[in-house]
Order: sequence, then C-alpha cells, then structure tokens
Amino acid sequence: MSSLRFTHDTLSQRVVLDSGRVVERVLSEAEQLGMSRPMLISTDGTHEVAERLAEDLPPSVHWRDAVQHVPREIADAATAAAKEAGADGLISIGGGSATGLAKAIALDTSLPIIAVPTTYAASEATPVWGITEERTKTTGVDPVVLPAVVIYDADLVATLPQGMAIASGLNAMAHCVDSLWAPTADPINRALGLESARALASALRALAAGGGQEAREQALYGCYLSGVAFASAGSGLHHKICHVLGGTFNLPHAETHAVVLRYVAALNLPAVPEVAQALAQALGGEDAITELNRLYQDIGAPGSLAELGMPEGGITEAVDRVLAAVPAGNPTQATHDNITALITAAFHGDDPARINDFVEGRTR
Amino acid sequence: MSSLRFTHDTLSQRVVLDSGRVVERVLSEAEQLGMSRPMLISTDGTHEVAERLAEDLPPSVHWRDAVQHVPREIADAATAAAKEAGADGLISIGGGSATGLAKAIALDTSLPIIAVPTTYAASEATPVWGITEERTKTTGVDPVVLPAVVIYDADLVATLPQGMAIASGLNAMAHCVDSLWAPTADPINRALGLESARALASALRALAAGGGQEAREQALYGCYLSGVAFASAGSGLHHKICHVLGGTFNLPHAETHAVVLRYVAALNLPAVPEVAQALAQALGGEDAITELNRLYQDIGAPGSLAELGMPEGGITEAVDRVLAAVPAGNPTQATHDNITALITAAFHGDDPARINDFVEGRTR
Repeated sequence: MSSLRFTHDTLSQRVVLDSGRVVERVLSEAEQLGMSRPMLISTDGTHEVAERLAEDLPPSVHWRDAVQHVPREIADAATAAAKEAGADGLISIGGGSATGLAKAIALDTSLPIIAVPTTYAASEATPVWGITEERTKTTGVDPVVLPAVVIYDADLVATLPQGMAIASGLNAMAHCVDSLWAPTADPINRALGLESARALASALRALAAGGGQEAREQALYGCYLSGVAFASAGSGLHHKICHVLGGTFNLPHAETHAVVLRYVAALNLPAVPEVAQALAQALGGEDAITELNRLYQDIGAPGSLAELGMPEGGITEAVDRVLAAVPAGNPTQATHDNITALITAAFHGDDPARINDFVEGRTR
Repeated sequence: MSSLRFTHDTLSQRVVLDSGRVVERVLSEAEQLGMSRPMLISTDGTHEVAERLAEDLPPSVHWRDAVQHVPREIADAATAAAKEAGADGLISIGGGSATGLAKAIALDTSLPIIAVPTTYAASEATPVWGITEERTKTTGVDPVVLPAVVIYDADLVATLPQGMAIASGLNAMAHCVDSLWAPTADPINRALGLESARALASALRALAAGGGQEAREQALYGCYLSGVAFASAGSGLHHKICHVLGGTFNLPHAETHAVVLRYVAALNLPAVPEVAQALAQALGGEDAITELNRLYQDIGAPGSLAELGMPEGGITEAVDRVLAAVPAGNPTQATHDNITALITAAFHGDDPARINDFVEGRTR
C-alpha cells in the first residue's frame, strides 16, 4: 500500500440511458430544467428526431448547420441566433459537431445544454470546447460548457457502419487507458477508466459479432465513462503521440488512436504493476497486453500506422516531436531509443511487447 | 450482456486527500471559493486545528458546539450566528456532528461548505441532511448541503481507537455493498461501490494489523467512495434491516451494520451473479461471501447481534418490521421464511451461506 495524495474534481451532470425513448426523455429533462424555448441543433442524420421533438416542444430556433471542428463564423452566427430568439437552453442532437456547436454557444451565453449524442465521440462527457478560426483550433476547459444532461438512446447509433463503430470504440478505449497515467490521474478517474475499459471490451466484441441494441448500449456507456475519466485525468503520452502523428501526417483520427494504444500500454504498464493488474482484470485476463492483443484480433482492429498511410521516412520526425511533448509524470521515462522503438513497432504493426527491449533496465 | 437503462446524477464536488497539510489546503480552497469571512465549526478533538487555521483566516464566527444528530435549537442558533456575522462560507472540522451542523446551516443560507472530516462517517460525500426535533430526526436530500470541497488528512483520524476505526470501516463497507442492489443502483454507482469495497478491504486489513498513515488514507478514500455510491443508489435491504434493528433494540450503529452485512449479501448475491462476481473480484477472490468471511476473521469483526445486546425474543418483531420495509427491486424476493432465517443467523453469528436453505428454488 502506498501513500495517496490527490485532488479530484467531480463535475455535475445527469446521464440518462434509455433506448427507444429519446423524445420523451428530452421533453421530461427540458421540463425539469425549465427550458421552454430551447434552441435545437441537429445535423443531417438527426433532423427527423429534432422535428419529432419540435412537435411537442416548439424551439425558439432550429439550427441545422453544424460542421466539424466548430468554425468560428458558424459559432458566432448560431450564438447570435440564440440570443436574438431568446433561447433558454440548448438541445443538441448529433455527434461531435452538434455537441461542439452547443458548447461554443454555451461558452458565450451560459445556457444549459441537453446533449443527445449519435456517435461514440464522448464530447458530451467533457467540459472541453473547441473553436476553429483560420485553420487553427483553439480549445479550452470551462464547466459552463459541460452538458447539464446527456441522453443516450442506442437506436440513434444503430446506423453507424460497423467499421466506424469499432474504430470509435477503440478510440474511447484509448481515452480510458491513457487516463490511467495521465498528468492528473487519481484513484477515482482510474476506477472510472477501468470500468470503461471493461464495458468497452465487452461492447467491442459484441459489436464485431454483429450485436444489436445491447452491444450499442454497452458501447455508449463505456464511451461515456471514458470521456469522464479522460476529462479528469488529462492527456497522457498516448494522446500526445496521436496528436503528433495526426497533425504531421494527416492520419485518420480514431484509427490512429486504435493502432497506437497497445504500444503505449506496453511501454507504460510494466512501470505501474498495480495499474497493469487492474487493467488486465478489467479486460478479463492475467496480462493487459495479452488481453488487448486478443481483443484486437477478435474484432479485426487496425494493426499498423503503415496501413493508415504514414510514410516510413516520417518516423524520425515523429520521434523528435513526441519527445518534445512527453507529459509530466509518464510512468516510463521516455527516451530517444524507446520512443523510436514504439513508433517503429506501431508503424509495422509488430508485437507491442517487443518495444520493452529498448527500455533501459527493463528485462522481459 | 443485458439491456441497460439508467439515470445517474453526478454531483459536483472537489475532494482533496493530502496528509499533514490540512491547514494550507483549507486556506487555498477557501481562497479559490472566495471565502474570506467563513464560519468555523469545530468539536472537542478539533479546536486546535481550527485555531491554527484561524491564525491565517480569521473567521467571522468560531462555533464550538456541534452535537450528534443536529438538534434543531443548535441548528437554529448556529444559522442565526452565521447570518449575523455575515459569514461567506462554512468550514467544518470534525465528524458527522460538525459536518451535519454545517449542512443544516447551508440548507437555510446556501453558503458553500468546506468539510474536513475526522472520522470515517462519509456524511461529507452525500447531499443528505438531518435535523432532530423532539426526539424525531427529519432527513432530506438537497444538493445545496453537499460540501463544495472535502479535505482529508490522515493525521486527523490517527487518534480514532482501532476498534472504532474497524467498525466504522465495516459500516462503510455495508454502504457500498448495499449500493450494489439499492433502489436507484446503476452501473456508475456500482463501479464506484466496487472500487470502494476494494479499497476498504485492503484498508481494514492494514488498520487491523496496526497500519499507519497509508492504511488511514486508504480507509478515508474507500469511505468517501462508499458515501458517493450510497448517496446515489439509495438505501437497500441492508440499511432497512439495520434501521429496524437499531430503532427497535437500540443497538450500536456501526457494529450492527458490520454484523448484518454478510447475511444480506448471502441472501442477495446469488440472484445477481454478475454483481457477485465483480464483488468477489474487488475483494480479491472467487466468491464474495467467502472473501467477506475471511476479511471478518482477519480483522476480528463483530460476529453476532446477540453480542451487541439484541434480545433473542425480538427476532419475530424484527422480521415483521423488516418485511414491511423491503425496498423495491431487491434482487431476492424477501419472504417471512428467508428474512427469519437471515435475522436468526445474524443473531447467532451463524455461517451466512446457510440462510439460502430458506430461499425457495435456490439450491446451494
């Protein structure tokens, strides 16, 4: 037993999971929040749900134009529309674009948000906002943008293609595993991250096997907790590496996270044996890397950065950039050798355990 | 995998665990909350800490008179004092009496609370308040009484006698185990309850072995999460039974919870095999009842209601009262036979597993 010292901020939020009843649940939550003239935000796939809702709760504005990464001009126009209409709340129905736009409006207006997610992105579980201006995305953290209520309905993710659902679920798995050693990790966000890993592993296997509503519910639940854990713990080494790879080589987001995860886990877990054991247990086995390998095999996860389009000649540049971004408190000291081994192994899709040959003093 | 449907309310709170630094942590949290004229509440064991704090943060009032169960006249007098002095926050240093008084004042004034607990009672983790008038305790739930900040310092529980620490830790264990099947149990409070059970089992063994600061930190952490899980899930069968036994026979609170826990677990766990397996895993073994029995043996836990002073002739009355109070959704249908078996076994300190002979259709 070692000494405990931590500060944990729990943020206020109601989360509802109730499949097939999204409209009635939104109505009841809006009533409880005293929202009678909400602004409705919907996207291509969700206009129909929004219109059903609008029959019983006429919105002050219905905004149908949410775009990835929240462009500044759309955020400004939507905020002005909300103010002009006298909206008393925001209801977003959609993925990260819809939630992101609602957050941008809340940042200015402090209006409460009811978020109805239709993907596994988990932005609804975090107080992080982002607005893009002249191709630069500014992000920040403000509790005012955290949705007051999140309503999950597994029917709304039923049309996601299976490949996208799996990549997105692995992206969430990366959120929760990275939260185990991120800069502000503490026992509470670790416990939530481990529960998330447990739920996601079981959801991903069920989704890959063509599972229906129950698999999607489990995935939504796991993604939600991965967002909660990640928001509390901050970005660990995994996220820094993926940020470098994504930014430098324009690789697909969720797939990059899926590939990199096992290699960062292989680097870090030997330095935190109690965490490693707890993760193994959450994944249903004795050894976390073995269990991750088995999961990846079972669900046909993306295997290498090469197949995502990273050029082999980019490894050196990536290593330098990663070394400049290693977060404080990473359990294994990052070195030129072990980060090179990590990115090279991820590039080729090699056995993750092999990278430990390059960690000084670590015998396998 | 079964269908998921739940509503979970997460309440906003900051929790700090930092042993040996209570004064500086309170000062820094008070500053962040903008408290410059707090009302200080301390009790016999904590006046000295309060006085050290007062040197750097002169209080608008220093209230030294907190009493168990929060008598109405003390709550009213303290609330009037806070208003008269223009207090801009409440800092309670002490056990359930100090926290409870701060909550009673907050209920009227909405002042934010910084709670510094000195026992394992976990009231600081819940939005439940209680005020006693004419020997009747009225309780209620209001988010305004939930402390904004909780600061744990293991030094402050160092003087608790070991027997009391163990009974109190088992009381917390009962909170978190009962939360697994309580009326508003959901996967999130269940995950927190299981993490609490894990931490408490390890803390209790360490405390029983004479462990020091690290054992106390683990116990505080486990108790905190037990309070969070219990507040979210509500009172399950265990708490209803203990309420009946405590009220009818005036038995000691924490010890009664300690004794009854294994019997309720033995009744309910076979009906929820996934929960039973997760609890076993949290307790470090294959079977939850076996692990609880082993823990009780290792730490010398109280064994029977008889040794706490319950009269054997009271069993019949207790059974009738419990049957009238069984909460909705208890996993095993409570019957006259199995509740009689449960209370009789708890009275004698028999093997908990034996009560399953009295559950219809259950073969062992």
